[in-house]
Amino acid sequence: MTTSISKLSDLLSEKVRVTNQVIEENLSSKETTIIGDIASHLINSGGKRIRPLLTLTVAKLFDYQGDKDTLLAAAIEYIHSATLLHDDVVDRSEKRRGLKTANIIWTNKYSVLVGDYLFSRAFQLMVRTESLRIMKTLSDASAIISQGEILQLAIEKKLDVSKEDYLKVIKGKTSALFSAACQAGAEITNARDSHVDALQEYGECIGTSFQLIDDLLDYLGNENKMGKNKGNDFFEKKITLPIIHAYERSSKAEKKFIKELFQKPLPNHSDLTDLLEILESSKSLLYTKNQALIWTERSINALQIIENSEIKTLIVELAEEILDRVS
Amino acid sequence: MTTSISKLSDLLSEKVRVTNQVIEENLSSKETTIIGDIASHLINSGGKRIRPLLTLTVAKLFDYQGDKDTLLAAAIEYIHSATLLHDDVVDRSEKRRGLKTANIIWTNKYSVLVGDYLFSRAFQLMVRTESLRIMKTLSDASAIISQGEILQLAIEKKLDVSKEDYLKVIKGKTSALFSAACQAGAEITNARDSHVDALQEYGECIGTSFQLIDDLLDYLGNENKMGKNKGNDFFEKKITLPIIHAYERSSKAEKKFIKELFQKPLPNHSDLTDLLEILESSKSLLYTKNQALIWTERSINALQIIENSEIKTLIVELAEEILDRVS
Repeated sequence: MTTSISKLSDLLSEKVRVTNQVIEENLSSKETTIIGDIASHLINSGGKRIRPLLTLTVAKLFDYQGDKDTLLAAAIEYIHSATLLHDDVVDRSEKRRGLKTANIIWTNKYSVLVGDYLFSRAFQLMVRTESLRIMKTLSDASAIISQGEILQLAIEKKLDVSKEDYLKVIKGKTSALFSAACQAGAEITNARDSHVDALQEYGECIGTSFQLIDDLLDYLGNENKMGKNKGNDFFEKKITLPIIHAYERSSKAEKKFIKELFQKPLPNHSDLTDLLEILESSKSLLYTKNQALIWTERSINALQIIENSEIKTLIVELAEEILDRVS
Repeated sequence: MTTSISKLSDLLSEKVRVTNQVIEENLSSKETTIIGDIASHLINSGGKRIRPLLTLTVAKLFDYQGDKDTLLAAAIEYIHSATLLHDDVVDRSEKRRGLKTANIIWTNKYSVLVGDYLFSRAFQLMVRTESLRIMKTLSDASAIISQGEILQLAIEKKLDVSKEDYLKVIKGKTSALFSAACQAGAEITNARDSHVDALQEYGECIGTSFQLIDDLLDYLGNENKMGKNKGNDFFEKKITLPIIHAYERSSKAEKKFIKELFQKPLPNHSDLTDLLEILESSKSLLYTKNQALIWTERSINALQIIENSEIKTLIVELAEEILDRVS
């Protein structure tokens, strides 16, 4: 996923620079240095900043001439970072983007509070866009995000969760912010409603595809690209699409075996190997990739009503490249 | 602190009813019942809802005729509840308002995520007020709140913290939301700037007084009123004004003794008794009460530029009654 992202970053280099500056400027607090330390540890740990780039890209797509897109893009990255800090507390994660997580270095309580701080900072930045419409889009997205995280806890260890319910989880944990990043990027340009809707749909669909590919990569073990350990979701007992599919297709005896794997208090690498064999024989990884493909196609279809342009071509490419992370 | 609060609740009974309805309506999520369960456990646990009442009261003071004050008041209560859920995680508290805390019943991860959900819901309600000015006031307050909580962690076990630094902590953990509740209540009425400033100052000062009285009550042990155990702050190793004052006035030997008390991994009730004797002999509880009195006077002075009215009289009484919680 380098081509279109690096082309867009080049094309929007001045906007990206200003956004990064806004992100840096608002990280620190004059009252205490620890906020800046923790927030920087996460925010400067090499995340691709794809969400703010989407916002800037969509604003450019509609030929936005103002300077508020960078405030908005920074706000989106702050919301994303706040959710990561809290996620790592909730999941007791120890590693993210190849580094120790903030909860491991500074303890949970700092991660909770600095997450809250970033979330507040995001709202302050949004207020500076002076657009109530954008504030509505992003506060709605925030509610869906936290709701999705709670749903994810509710399906923990629930192997027979339906694919529909799992899609609701994905909507919260990933698609909602991709969707809001694109929608708000269109809204700030005062694009017409049908165009705003198209970009909202595009964002939601690539977000879903992005998460399905993440689910897949977790079992393919692409440690360099993910900065996480192979089988991380399994060790955290997270039910994802490959598992739901495999369980659904399994015989009674296999179901019992999968259940036992997920019930082990301390699963080990041999358990992961067993699980991978099941995923292989049930073709669940292939199924997941095909589902991601469907969502990517849907995202590209959503853009049909948008006039062709260099930026539009790159946005389409970006959707396609989300799939290519697997190969 | 019953008289003015119950008079105001009576006078504003219809507004209070609508606010409570907004609070109830937005608590639940159709996706999962656990959000409603956790949020209701906290929100319906008998808190006095003094912050939303302040908002409604200030709107009434400026003769507000619209219906957005109730949305705003509900948003304020949600922000307050979100911070309580996160505070209890950070402090590992087990009891609040006489009940088990949500983190004890449902675990930390639910408290973190439901706190995030309430915070998002608060912003959704604010958006419905359609006032950018109010969104600025409340997002600024939110940033100060989380910053104050982080500052509080930074001064943990730091007995020689200055009173000035401790006031910054109080500003975050308590005064900022009292202040914003009053300020936003004035802003929604489009009151003139000097009046908005007066109410902001009033809120900040009663918030400070409120917190100092809380610090005091913690050592006086007023379990019925507080719903917390006597000496809770000591057992959580929280440095509050009585302690800062006592430590400041102590001899070298006494300082060593206080330090040892706060360094004990598992302090017991006899340690608390020792500490209370020191607080008694250094007159630190009296000092704290006098400080609260000063902030209360300051809050009442701030209202001088406001025309006299029945509501103003009750607002002044409310400030005085915050002090009376001690007797």
